[in-house]
Amino acid sequence: MFETVRWHTADGRLLDAPATDGTPLLPGRVRLIDQTRLPAELVYVELESPEAMHDAIKRLVVRGAPAIGCAAALGLAAALQHDTGTPATFLARTRQVADYLAGARPTAVNLAWAIRRTLAAALAAADSRADLPALKLALIREALAILQEDIALCQSIGHHGAPLIQDGMGVLTHCNAGALATADFGTALSVFYTAHNAGRRFTVYADETRPLLQGARLTTWELHHAGIDVVAICDNMAATLMQAGRIQAVIVGADRVAANGDTANKIGTYGVAVLAHHHRIPFYVAMPYSTIDVAIADGRAIPIEERDPDEVRRVAGQLVTPPGVRVFNPAFDVTPHALIRGFVTDRGLLEPPFAPKLAAAARRP
Amino acid sequence: MFETVRWHTADGRLLDAPATDGTPLLPGRVRLIDQTRLPAELVYVELESPEAMHDAIKRLVVRGAPAIGCAAALGLAAALQHDTGTPATFLARTRQVADYLAGARPTAVNLAWAIRRTLAAALAAADSRADLPALKLALIREALAILQEDIALCQSIGHHGAPLIQDGMGVLTHCNAGALATADFGTALSVFYTAHNAGRRFTVYADETRPLLQGARLTTWELHHAGIDVVAICDNMAATLMQAGRIQAVIVGADRVAANGDTANKIGTYGVAVLAHHHRIPFYVAMPYSTIDVAIADGRAIPIEERDPDEVRRVAGQLVTPPGVRVFNPAFDVTPHALIRGFVTDRGLLEPPFAPKLAAAARRP
Repeated sequence: MFETVRWHTADGRLLDAPATDGTPLLPGRVRLIDQTRLPAELVYVELESPEAMHDAIKRLVVRGAPAIGCAAALGLAAALQHDTGTPATFLARTRQVADYLAGARPTAVNLAWAIRRTLAAALAAADSRADLPALKLALIREALAILQEDIALCQSIGHHGAPLIQDGMGVLTHCNAGALATADFGTALSVFYTAHNAGRRFTVYADETRPLLQGARLTTWELHHAGIDVVAICDNMAATLMQAGRIQAVIVGADRVAANGDTANKIGTYGVAVLAHHHRIPFYVAMPYSTIDVAIADGRAIPIEERDPDEVRRVAGQLVTPPGVRVFNPAFDVTPHALIRGFVTDRGLLEPPFAPKLAAAARRP
Repeated sequence: MFETVRWHTADGRLLDAPATDGTPLLPGRVRLIDQTRLPAELVYVELESPEAMHDAIKRLVVRGAPAIGCAAALGLAAALQHDTGTPATFLARTRQVADYLAGARPTAVNLAWAIRRTLAAALAAADSRADLPALKLALIREALAILQEDIALCQSIGHHGAPLIQDGMGVLTHCNAGALATADFGTALSVFYTAHNAGRRFTVYADETRPLLQGARLTTWELHHAGIDVVAICDNMAATLMQAGRIQAVIVGADRVAANGDTANKIGTYGVAVLAHHHRIPFYVAMPYSTIDVAIADGRAIPIEERDPDEVRRVAGQLVTPPGVRVFNPAFDVTPHALIRGFVTDRGLLEPPFAPKLAAAARRP
């Protein structure tokens, strides 16, 4: 839809899956939406070198865990496509670039996972005594498979969540769990796209999502461009909308879901869940199976990263708080499962009791 | 303390009350903190002409209903101090300047009230056949009486609220109900100043308060300069602090309190009240008697002003939302009385049932 992350082949095709019609996959480049330019302008950048991809991930040209994973996997394949060594030196160089790219944002789980998976495909090919061209092809095929899988998961989430949206509803979302955070379509926002394409007309209220304003900058941009009625609000305005009866459902994304359903997501999500509970508005979390972490029993075990205080002190680059004043800047919060009405996943809508259903959904298809 | 609004006499005295020791009140100038320069720097400006005061009110050099009222009353006296007409032409000119100043922010109730009261003092003096110097003195005496009363009300609120603050507590506030919104000391923040001066040590969490960031810019500045431990947070971080047990009380100001206790205050206040209720944290509203509007039965009758969408679209002047996206920007919300544990007023702490106590407190001392 927005083609957030794609593979651009030398003959001009934009691929979102391994081509099966004989189109040559190599050479090619990774094409990304430059999210640092949004919402002012829609600019695509094309990358090939590991340095360029490392920089794109670090500077948030590409952001959102699934999108970063897809970009890095394609970036690894792109970086190795012109290698001229032996299979052994190729694999050594692949490991080196993989480590380098994985270090661009060390805490991003999907980044390391996608790079490991792509590297493993090359190693498996090498075990089968593949030659250099075959090794390069193994990398790009696996990276494209990751891209394809991400898009399919997002579309499946949209399919399972769309029945939650009825004509005339007001729906609130927080942060950006959209096409820009994935290879395309998104998680929470995929639900809106699918419902909209099915002809339903509704209004999305987008929390601006301080400190980094992903809601104001990215969610409103996505939905507006897709022709969905979207209203930007400051985070502190959600409550009065609920009080006025203008919100009938809340749908957000997730960074990590514990075995019992406790959910870590962008700071502010928990507050929205409490407000929804108080106003008897159903609160849904949309995410693919890979976000479920069955190794974590409940939310108490989820570590919460505190980020640079300057993100709070500055808004759009300008200092708004006196120097020397202390700041609290947690990146995420944890919403207890009791406040969640359901999980919209690629396997369907999961309703309580969550634990057995999340455990089943977490197994890879 | 911060001397937000004062009368600066020609012999160099800063007055916060009508002098009784023979100090000449006239000539003089109105001295204000220029709040548009905060938090970057503390600059005082001195004004005399009606044009300068009109501009200061309009540009939010002075803001906060009580502070605007004091500034405008002093501004009226300053503007007329060099008048050379007859008592009759003086009164005509006074009415003219009064109307002009009252129009600087038409919706500010305290502005019109303070100007009417100052004008009435001159009219009463004229009824007693006062000469021109006596009429000028009537204006400045009444303006100084308003200033003195505002400071006394704030100190009284602080006195009655201070027992709510115990050593080691975390207290949340929203927007700026501080010295900068009044002649000095503030309403909600007066409680903190009084408790701090009594030796209690506690932490204030200040919601930044989008869209205009009065919490980040003004509340943190005030408290930090007063030596009170203050932590700036984005509005959407309050919930996770409450969940973590780091907030033991919430104290906010009020723009208008209805007869039943329903309270209009800066947008975001209602959401904080719901969060406090969910976490069983007491939620207090601090305000002087003049904020109680017994003519309004309950919150449904309080009109909510919607402000310029650009306040949401822009942060610190920079556009953060795509052009064309709709925005919702209510200036205030209404907190139902059921979510309020008590009102900290100049007449004492009012606990439920609120209606009879608010009615009694609303009568002018």
